[in-house]
Amino acid sequence: MPGVDRELWLKRKEELRERLLSDLHIGYLDRDILDILLMFFKREEAFTISSCSGRIVVVDAPLPWVRRESTVIFKKHEPVKVGELEDVLRQDAVHVLWLVVTGPIIHVSTASLREAVRVLRIAREAGMKHSGILSLSKKGIVVELKTGVRIAVPLKQKNNLLVSSDKLSELVDIANKALLEGKKKLEKLREALAKSKD
Amino acid sequence: MPGVDRELWLKRKEELRERLLSDLHIGYLDRDILDILLMFFKREEAFTISSCSGRIVVVDAPLPWVRRESTVIFKKHEPVKVGELEDVLRQDAVHVLWLVVTGPIIHVSTASLREAVRVLRIAREAGMKHSGILSLSKKGIVVELKTGVRIAVPLKQKNNLLVSSDKLSELVDIANKALLEGKKKLEKLREALAKSKD
Repeated sequence: MPGVDRELWLKRKEELRERLLSDLHIGYLDRDILDILLMFFKREEAFTISSCSGRIVVVDAPLPWVRRESTVIFKKHEPVKVGELEDVLRQDAVHVLWLVVTGPIIHVSTASLREAVRVLRIAREAGMKHSGILSLSKKGIVVELKTGVRIAVPLKQKNNLLVSSDKLSELVDIANKALLEGKKKLEKLREALAKSKD
Repeated sequence: MPGVDRELWLKRKEELRERLLSDLHIGYLDRDILDILLMFFKREEAFTISSCSGRIVVVDAPLPWVRRESTVIFKKHEPVKVGELEDVLRQDAVHVLWLVVTGPIIHVSTASLREAVRVLRIAREAGMKHSGILSLSKKGIVVELKTGVRIAVPLKQKNNLLVSSDKLSELVDIANKALLEGKKKLEKLREALAKSKD
């Protein structure tokens, strides 16, 4: 087990801090997650690599986790409207159009195993039960913070609509409810981070 | 960071080996995962805590990841038939009836971080990309082996059917295809374990 190379790690932290500020400037960044990312950067032995505050997407794919041959045709980080889904469903699918709702995901790099375990504990406290350490290397220890929030519904196969058009509004309500459940976990993460000591 | 207490860990390994054999005897165990569990037990610094070979369930819940107020009303580790789903859909939901397909999940306890990293590498090689270290304590290091295979489809809300009954067979085909994708990852895990050295 190689230990973390502190010098390398600190250099990367500074690079990613700059990228974060530049992403913020350009408008790439979800505003509702920014303060959480900055809270991680403030910790001496942590920084964030990437993040998503939770989203609703429609993807054209054989199965929703298959990246090859898949195309994202709709993406939104806020609740969707029935009309937006109706628009998307006008087009036929190469494979299957999937409505996928995912909760927040944050990748954190830590400089020590001790800090990785602390971050995991904070994530658990926030109810992000599917969090874990993904890898350990001299570049750092990568911790994934993740909730169990996930829905994947097949909407249309080729030109064959699988959901009745008169049930779309129920489906949209459920998807939006799922999205908000994810956002609530972010609130909890914010609280857990605020009260935890570096 | 407390290290793993080897004596405690070995005692637990023996207890869980006995439970595994007893579960096998009673018929609790998925046959298609047994040899993989035994391969982990054969490794000097690993044993499995729990496992699921992948399954299709119907659960009555507000959202599929909410355990409170949720009831499993159908569960199968093999492909399902349209008739089985039709039977389930005859009853109304307290909340929402969800069709949930999940891939295989295995929890492994290791006696060292080095072995945890080895197990993670084997999981990645098998395409179980959502694997990670969940916790570290003197009782052992817990590694979760998991795929991205997951579908969750709302079928019925209270007495309101959300899927058209004439589209059930397409849905069942998709669910079965997802289940088999998960089982394929188990095959790959078997191969990756066989060629890895303890």
